[in-house]
Amino acid sequence: MVQAKSWILAKHFDGFPKDSDFKLVVEELPEPKDGEVVLEAVFLSVDPYMRPFSRIRMKEGDIMIGTQVARVIQSKNAAFPVGSHAVSRCGWRSHAVSDGTDLIPIMPDWPQDVSLSLALGTVGMPGLTALYGIEEVLGLQKGETLLVNAAAGAVGSVVGQIAKIKGCKVVGSAGSDAKVAYLKELGFDEAFNYKTVSSLEEALRKASPDGYDCFFENVGGVFSSVALQQMKNFGRIAVCGSISTYNDAAPQTGPYPHLTMIFKQLKMEGFMQSRWEHKHPESLKRLMAWLKEGKLQYREHVTKGFENMPAAFMGMLQGENIGKAIVAA
Amino acid sequence: MVQAKSWILAKHFDGFPKDSDFKLVVEELPEPKDGEVVLEAVFLSVDPYMRPFSRIRMKEGDIMIGTQVARVIQSKNAAFPVGSHAVSRCGWRSHAVSDGTDLIPIMPDWPQDVSLSLALGTVGMPGLTALYGIEEVLGLQKGETLLVNAAAGAVGSVVGQIAKIKGCKVVGSAGSDAKVAYLKELGFDEAFNYKTVSSLEEALRKASPDGYDCFFENVGGVFSSVALQQMKNFGRIAVCGSISTYNDAAPQTGPYPHLTMIFKQLKMEGFMQSRWEHKHPESLKRLMAWLKEGKLQYREHVTKGFENMPAAFMGMLQGENIGKAIVAA
Repeated sequence: MVQAKSWILAKHFDGFPKDSDFKLVVEELPEPKDGEVVLEAVFLSVDPYMRPFSRIRMKEGDIMIGTQVARVIQSKNAAFPVGSHAVSRCGWRSHAVSDGTDLIPIMPDWPQDVSLSLALGTVGMPGLTALYGIEEVLGLQKGETLLVNAAAGAVGSVVGQIAKIKGCKVVGSAGSDAKVAYLKELGFDEAFNYKTVSSLEEALRKASPDGYDCFFENVGGVFSSVALQQMKNFGRIAVCGSISTYNDAAPQTGPYPHLTMIFKQLKMEGFMQSRWEHKHPESLKRLMAWLKEGKLQYREHVTKGFENMPAAFMGMLQGENIGKAIVAA
Repeated sequence: MVQAKSWILAKHFDGFPKDSDFKLVVEELPEPKDGEVVLEAVFLSVDPYMRPFSRIRMKEGDIMIGTQVARVIQSKNAAFPVGSHAVSRCGWRSHAVSDGTDLIPIMPDWPQDVSLSLALGTVGMPGLTALYGIEEVLGLQKGETLLVNAAAGAVGSVVGQIAKIKGCKVVGSAGSDAKVAYLKELGFDEAFNYKTVSSLEEALRKASPDGYDCFFENVGGVFSSVALQQMKNFGRIAVCGSISTYNDAAPQTGPYPHLTMIFKQLKMEGFMQSRWEHKHPESLKRLMAWLKEGKLQYREHVTKGFENMPAAFMGMLQGENIGKAIVAA
């Protein structure tokens, strides 16, 4: 018998999440039937999207949603032998039984020297999000100038590097001097700490006096209103996230963007990586190739212990992480 | 010597325009030189865009911007003989001298039984705006459901009719019962008076319980926030105007659209018809053909007298007009 721990959404978040919104429950897993496997979490992901999705995809008492890299510890499914790994969408669970249909096998030929945790980051959902945002939504072209905020995060750090691969000028905004230093390491042309600049508008203008062709939006809120004014005519905005508004008890408001969008003929599009799921295998190969060539660097912010998932999640929402926030079970 | 009257922006509008913001000036025109013509205004256009453009394209003392249908009354330019007509961008002027470079000849074969004032409306800039918004921005497809607000206006009324030509379901919002009755005459599937419905949200949901594929936005402000929630996944929004915010002394604010745009993967694009200027001649022919076939109906709201241009402009901003607001000089 395997004991499985799960983190439950005990209470819908009201404003910023707190410890008492989560509850750890323990159950005994049934023996796997034919076709089933028993999974053990190795690395678990905490991501910004979990905060808004908690409201629309979960009810109180549900297990927190999310993906993990899991190891097969018992198997009655030949496709997933004992000792193999897969990305599972089973949520915040230490162990789970699966019939395999919700599992994504780890990419074939995953290099020995690359941590499997990357399958939750640069060579996983966040990397795909960055890639599709740039290629499918923005259609970023060589020589253009791109702005990305939350630039030291799991998605933003990949966005900036892919834009550099494509021959663009990249400006990144982040929330600490250490993050800004990291962006410079990654090859960002310009980077600033939005918390310490005297004026966001001036910082954006100084970083690119001609404005921005493309804007990869992870933050929303006031940042979005200021950045909108710095777009060039025919600028494109990929709306990937809005982390500055996720924890609002009441919705933040800002000036309507319409008039600026008309005069500058701006395009703004919200997206999720799942739209291009049919391209995932090919896209993951491209991300891995860039990684192996050293064109995509990464950092991880690893929290140890399944029991610390709520803390890791809340820390990520507060911007504690440089790079991908991961929990090592 | 020809006496020319012009309406000047005496003072930048602060909130809703008032009589004292305009000033009528009279000057004597010089004799036309070789290549020049003297124009006399026949029909002048007042349009919503003039309100926001006054702030970004004009300074105090400038002649109000705008287009007119003018008759050539003196000519030293063979391309524009006396008695011919053209669309001129010379602004709010009763008479003007032109070297022809700023003139757009009236479409060849303009039918005798169609008023030349239509060159400022359904077969002019507003008609082109409707057409490009639908075809170039929204990519509206047969069988889709389209929402348009300010639907009884110069642009909105054409939008709804073109969407019907394309085999779509059309829902229109307007600000009076008479306008709603007009929309029904035009063949709109659903129409409502946004000023008298008890809930805009309910009215939109009732008119299309499944939501909207496309939204042609003329109004902005609160309407935009409510309509956003009624979009289907992958919905497209063409941002053409924002008339509900044009007269704000301080910018109105509303909830940020980002999270909804992400979850529904919505696209929103601001545009101006001038982007497709290379297509204008062909597009005007298409609009005229639909008009002659009876597929595009129109109304005009005609104010008599050049001296009444400010009143016509302010009345249009208050929604007095059904169809295109025109001043007959």
